[in-house]
Amino acid sequence: MKYRLIFIGFGVVGQGLTEILINKKDFLKKKFGFEYEIVAVSDMLKGAIANPSGLDPKKLLSLVKNGKKLDDYAQGTKGLDALATIDQVDADIMIEVSYTDVKTGEPATSHCKAAFNRGMHVVTSNKGPVSLFYNDLMKLATKKNLIFGIEGTVMSGTPVLNTGLKNLAGCSFTRISGILNGTTNYILTEMEQGKAYEEVLKKAQELGYAEADPTGDVEGWDALAKVIILSNVLMGGNVKFADAEREGITKITLDDVQKAKAEGARWKLIGETSIQNGKIKAKVAPQKLPLSDPLASVMGATNAITFETDLMGNVTVIGKGAGKTETGFSILTDLLDIHRQTAN
Amino acid sequence: MKYRLIFIGFGVVGQGLTEILINKKDFLKKKFGFEYEIVAVSDMLKGAIANPSGLDPKKLLSLVKNGKKLDDYAQGTKGLDALATIDQVDADIMIEVSYTDVKTGEPATSHCKAAFNRGMHVVTSNKGPVSLFYNDLMKLATKKNLIFGIEGTVMSGTPVLNTGLKNLAGCSFTRISGILNGTTNYILTEMEQGKAYEEVLKKAQELGYAEADPTGDVEGWDALAKVIILSNVLMGGNVKFADAEREGITKITLDDVQKAKAEGARWKLIGETSIQNGKIKAKVAPQKLPLSDPLASVMGATNAITFETDLMGNVTVIGKGAGKTETGFSILTDLLDIHRQTAN
Repeated sequence: MKYRLIFIGFGVVGQGLTEILINKKDFLKKKFGFEYEIVAVSDMLKGAIANPSGLDPKKLLSLVKNGKKLDDYAQGTKGLDALATIDQVDADIMIEVSYTDVKTGEPATSHCKAAFNRGMHVVTSNKGPVSLFYNDLMKLATKKNLIFGIEGTVMSGTPVLNTGLKNLAGCSFTRISGILNGTTNYILTEMEQGKAYEEVLKKAQELGYAEADPTGDVEGWDALAKVIILSNVLMGGNVKFADAEREGITKITLDDVQKAKAEGARWKLIGETSIQNGKIKAKVAPQKLPLSDPLASVMGATNAITFETDLMGNVTVIGKGAGKTETGFSILTDLLDIHRQTAN
Repeated sequence: MKYRLIFIGFGVVGQGLTEILINKKDFLKKKFGFEYEIVAVSDMLKGAIANPSGLDPKKLLSLVKNGKKLDDYAQGTKGLDALATIDQVDADIMIEVSYTDVKTGEPATSHCKAAFNRGMHVVTSNKGPVSLFYNDLMKLATKKNLIFGIEGTVMSGTPVLNTGLKNLAGCSFTRISGILNGTTNYILTEMEQGKAYEEVLKKAQELGYAEADPTGDVEGWDALAKVIILSNVLMGGNVKFADAEREGITKITLDDVQKAKAEGARWKLIGETSIQNGKIKAKVAPQKLPLSDPLASVMGATNAITFETDLMGNVTVIGKGAGKTETGFSILTDLLDIHRQTAN
């Protein structure tokens, strides 16, 4: 089965996915009978190109790597913005990998709605629409009998949402908690070696783990977006940012970290959602964990999540939480899932 | 969608599943549109009952809990053995939870073949047929366009095979390694507290973790069956028991365990399958792991597995590896997977 793909956004994730699709083309066809054709790409900064006969993914990558515009692609319709692309190009799946805005969810949310209304499945790693409007978008997808693939919004391609939605589907969750932000876990890990917060933050910025303005990471906003996604996707909630508690790692001192170490414990920034008095409570805050907790052993930029369930006790998944290939892979996971569910 | 189920075997796993199906009946219908009817149960020791109009699961449990035969169920055809049940009763799914024989794979393998030939999907947690004849059975299932659900054969309901087959489907695996036997991990954990092997084994037997003849666990046979399943299901191999290396934990002394502890390391019985010089190598042996390895922190009867992948780096899953509810749940996971793949 061959799927016509539209890419909305062609930044790190879109390019990471394209590299995987090129490298794994034969593997995907042979192993799963999965084939693809990229019929359009539209990026706010890099331009746009559409061609119903298909675009050469290597040429697309080559253009952007050489600082050229996608409009420089020889054959096709040029200059269509995101909504025009979705409106005018026929496709099976829209891949939303434009930039993330967790304040408004736009423009990504409009892209998702437009794609569903055009009868396309949607796959995205964009936390904006999923943290703010999951229930609305899912309702629209269900009404149209379409799939909304969102694995990459929590811990990139490490299986978290699909684990909860499919592998553990028969369970009820009483609490889901995890290390959902790699930057802060890297900082806390380095502080255990005796380095001061400011020093480590600077190194994290140099390594590209942390942004110039680190607020999103160190104040817990990024982790909170994921906690809200977990609450609404896996706990059946309708939690908003304003409903949640949030505290970052900026109040944790070197002294706190060292004291915990001496006690055989470890500070971690934990995002969690749980059922309390019948209501869903979403929260991000530093927690001092005993070393026997599987989350306590997760060091550096690695992420991890523990599902507390009624039937299986605790199930923990540990893996990477970010990265070009890892987030690109999350999209591939959802594409293969669409293939599995629709090809029969 | 309502599925007619045949149970072959009604021991711990079959009863665990039945309890879950009773307790979750409304949840499964409401959340997934999944409904079931048990139309036959055949157990070598507990007797057999079949009724195309459906059997009351509570009555079935009540009979066996009170030491009665299934034949004492009031309405239905009595006394059909496993193959006669599969042959004569119309059903959608055969649940193979009879006893495990990893030497011959029988009679479970014959049950699976008969069910496929009758057009039924098969779900099983039985390591016998899957460790010995996975490729043959899978070929038959594929030919008949049927599903062979086997999640429970490795780490019970903790998602391992479905993680590899579905969530990480787009990855290639270079190595898969894990703590695949709870009894031996419990013994090694207790030995770290200074207790001698014989003392701990005795306690494990009292707790029901270890059998009267502990060979299957402590000599690594149980872990090896799972390694062979991982090799053939996830690495595309055709590995037989005779191809694999196997060493148990009986040569590990209290002194070894304590020395490792002093070095900041830990002995674990590791089952692993890896690609070496283009060939699949399956092996079970004690390994001394640094405490930084996620598998090193897994204590007691808990199991864990690490997938080493080309695109996602390492992904580790930690959870329970055995138990009545946990293995019963593994069957439910596969039932819901069949529902997801066939209901559209």
